Amino acid sequence: MYPEYPPDLNDEQKEYLLFNLKDWSIAHGLAVRPTPTYVPTEQDPSAALATTAPVTLFPSLFPRVCFGQAASVVNAYNELYSAIASDEAWLKDIVEELTEIDDFMANLWKVHMEVKKEGYAHTLNLGLFRSDYMVHVDPSEPKPLVKQVEFNTIASSFGGLSSQVTGMHRYLRSVDAYPESMANIVTESSLPPSTSVPGLARGMAKAHEAYGKSGSGSPTCVLFLVQDMERNVFDQRHVEYALNENHGVRTFRLPFSRVLKDTKVDGERNLIYMPPQTPQKQYEVTVVYLRAGYSPSEYEDQTAWDARLQIERSKAIKCPSVLLQLAGTKKVQQVLATPHSPHLKRFLPDEKQAADVLKTFAPIYPMDKSEAGMGARKLATDPETANRYVMKPQREGGGNNVYRKAIPDTLKNLPESQWPAYILMEMIEPPEQSNVIFRNGELQKGGVICELGMYGACLWRQGQHDGEREVLENFDAGYLLRTKGDSSEEGGVAAGFGAVDSACLVDV
Amino acid sequence: MYPEYPPDLNDEQKEYLLFNLKDWSIAHGLAVRPTPTYVPTEQDPSAALATTAPVTLFPSLFPRVCFGQAASVVNAYNELYSAIASDEAWLKDIVEELTEIDDFMANLWKVHMEVKKEGYAHTLNLGLFRSDYMVHVDPSEPKPLVKQVEFNTIASSFGGLSSQVTGMHRYLRSVDAYPESMANIVTESSLPPSTSVPGLARGMAKAHEAYGKSGSGSPTCVLFLVQDMERNVFDQRHVEYALNENHGVRTFRLPFSRVLKDTKVDGERNLIYMPPQTPQKQYEVTVVYLRAGYSPSEYEDQTAWDARLQIERSKAIKCPSVLLQLAGTKKVQQVLATPHSPHLKRFLPDEKQAADVLKTFAPIYPMDKSEAGMGARKLATDPETANRYVMKPQREGGGNNVYRKAIPDTLKNLPESQWPAYILMEMIEPPEQSNVIFRNGELQKGGVICELGMYGACLWRQGQHDGEREVLENFDAGYLLRTKGDSSEEGGVAAGFGAVDSACLVDV
Repeated sequence: MYPEYPPDLNDEQKEYLLFNLKDWSIAHGLAVRPTPTYVPTEQDPSAALATTAPVTLFPSLFPRVCFGQAASVVNAYNELYSAIASDEAWLKDIVEELTEIDDFMANLWKVHMEVKKEGYAHTLNLGLFRSDYMVHVDPSEPKPLVKQVEFNTIASSFGGLSSQVTGMHRYLRSVDAYPESMANIVTESSLPPSTSVPGLARGMAKAHEAYGKSGSGSPTCVLFLVQDMERNVFDQRHVEYALNENHGVRTFRLPFSRVLKDTKVDGERNLIYMPPQTPQKQYEVTVVYLRAGYSPSEYEDQTAWDARLQIERSKAIKCPSVLLQLAGTKKVQQVLATPHSPHLKRFLPDEKQAADVLKTFAPIYPMDKSEAGMGARKLATDPETANRYVMKPQREGGGNNVYRKAIPDTLKNLPESQWPAYILMEMIEPPEQSNVIFRNGELQKGGVICELGMYGACLWRQGQHDGEREVLENFDAGYLLRTKGDSSEEGGVAAGFGAVDSACLVDV
Repeated sequence: MYPEYPPDLNDEQKEYLLFNLKDWSIAHGLAVRPTPTYVPTEQDPSAALATTAPVTLFPSLFPRVCFGQAASVVNAYNELYSAIASDEAWLKDIVEELTEIDDFMANLWKVHMEVKKEGYAHTLNLGLFRSDYMVHVDPSEPKPLVKQVEFNTIASSFGGLSSQVTGMHRYLRSVDAYPESMANIVTESSLPPSTSVPGLARGMAKAHEAYGKSGSGSPTCVLFLVQDMERNVFDQRHVEYALNENHGVRTFRLPFSRVLKDTKVDGERNLIYMPPQTPQKQYEVTVVYLRAGYSPSEYEDQTAWDARLQIERSKAIKCPSVLLQLAGTKKVQQVLATPHSPHLKRFLPDEKQAADVLKTFAPIYPMDKSEAGMGARKLATDPETANRYVMKPQREGGGNNVYRKAIPDTLKNLPESQWPAYILMEMIEPPEQSNVIFRNGELQKGGVICELGMYGACLWRQGQHDGEREVLENFDAGYLLRTKGDSSEEGGVAAGFGAVDSACLVDV
């Protein structure tokens, strides 16, 4: 789009930009705990050091039309995924196809079934979603479009840092840290602030409010369920602090490994949290916000599953419930996005909404023995055609994608019975651009790929019958731009690559 | 006052408090760059790491009556020191006594004289003051009083972090990080927030506004004159960001060592700043805020003095001017606080104000050959009486104080001609209390001494004649509590000991 963007900096410009970036980021908590390779644990056993979160020096260019397209379907996606999570029978068919090949999904389903036997204690559901897109340039289309990479229904991260990084790039512009030649591109109005911090906090506050009065008589709280060693803690904290300050909601962080120790479910199935530091003071949990428990590696033994069950069967509003987590599997994305799929209209009866959502789908195929699946197997085993595809595991948590020419060989080494655990997705072809990433105190310059995430919040009440529900809240909750070097085809910032970024909207 | 304060924490309580403290502090920029002993420079050459600023775990107890007393004299102190700095003839007498023994003061005076020859280009003056006190318990008094330790007219630090630390202690209280037994002591209303960030920023904004339109036609800015390797950078940045955000004022940080390179004084004596990163874009400086240039060690050669002269002779409002810096010497404090001194009423004709200020003075004596000085010499050379005193150098910058029994020996090794470079001050006897300090990732527990700093902002226009002036702004600007282990009698946080703290007001 702008081949000269971002311009090279001379030494004085680079020093000025970096000084301002490093100071602003720490002053505003745009930070992470350093990696052990940067600061060995034994050097800082109390983990008191922090560093600037991996960020881009410049806001990456993003077509205004694409940003608008992604923003315009946030409410429709909220509708769609709340509808899917409310249709247990439909989800059951999807999940049953996979239970044999995916233990993790089978176990999640088991948790759901056990709670179902007893009857769910609460009908309220909260989704804090992030729909991730890349810009797709199709020579046959007049304008670029966004195409969905994935839809996250659990632990959608970086909402805390995203508000900060959009603030940082706006600050850097305001202090002339960007060269004169950028002045017409990077303007006040081309840098949309991200409202992800107040937006996600508002979503939790709405659920907290809808939960109603304490049933046990104990004061209420929202529980952030977290991983043990979380380096990305400030990302979560910003949302938590906003929930405290803007809405007066009491919050606690609870490591997933401590659920069985520090919580119990009482006779009315209220989820009671017993803080180890104030055991005499108990809390009733209104909302459990999962920033843990999304990945198979977190369920090493039965106690982890017992913990998940304890939360699921309680009266607390789960963000997400097991069904909503399952709705976020790539299998569901594939079923919706398989060309000529009938499923989208089932959940989105509004034709305009369905058409808009459909436009964001890149073709995705199953790898099973269905007609579409057999077609996909053909595409995937032929090195020629495989080159336009990415093969992804169905389960959540990222990683382990197989790209293009590597697909045929991978399949050769994989028993055919395992193939349905994957889906095949047409590669999205984003426009090339450059940026500079600052991470671990070092600069990395080069070609980058950007992924736009749109946050949405949805609160609904499940009806008595399958598919019935009443949507109480449905609003957008800011955006995220994640940027990684285009030499790495794996990952995203969480996996140790890439950076948080912000969008500089441009007309194309 | 409360011998059980703060209570001991068990392991769970300590872990909970520290987790919350470490996360909140970094998320809110209550941070410093780590010392080289914590993180060697070669490990982090780009200085991207940060850590929690040295803080106390608990707010220290502070008598409400003393806090009120210190707050009640802020406006009077603003009056007093603006009056002193406006009375060149009076200051001249003071300084001339010291020029022979204190090169630094002599050189400062020379800068003033050179500018005076040419005529000052501007009559506006800005003081951002901090008056530091300790609680003094005198068995003969019914209530404790605050007694002044020193009055700072240049580079009064920690205003940025103080607002944050009061916020942190309030946060920790709100999340029950303090044990139940503190609940009646540490309450919402016993923890006054510090308005130092908006207060100091407002002071600079008022001066910036009063400067008026650009004379050169270039856009205007405020210059933060800083030291080269500033670990306490976030303290300064918070004030700067508030100045940007609350008042829309453009700011730059300029290392003192680069003044002659990056600024010039034009024919109208406008101070022109030429940012090295955007040399085509010049700024006219309205206010120079000195966070450097206060210590003799910063003036290693003539170029530093040339730099100071360049700023002083320019039309920019100096915060502070040379005269105002000289007004902050301990010699002035001593002259005012010498028992039966006639000087206070000269500058504070309002009797009530003068009486209130007088109450905050601890007796201070010169060490010269005046009557009071000869008395002081007697007190200082006798180990018995010296034990109630501290001997301080006249010049600014802290450090090198000589305490109690060490005074006689120090004087033995010091030529008598050097004695007048010191003042002798009665030791303030603060009440004993305990606290826990978190610094460099480590906990230090023990007896502590607290120092309360009251910030004040004063903007005035110097009249045509000595002693004439018009005060345009006079307001309080928040507070600071600095706390250090009582085993160390030296320093303060800046010198590498102690921590930033906040006041928990208690009735005594």
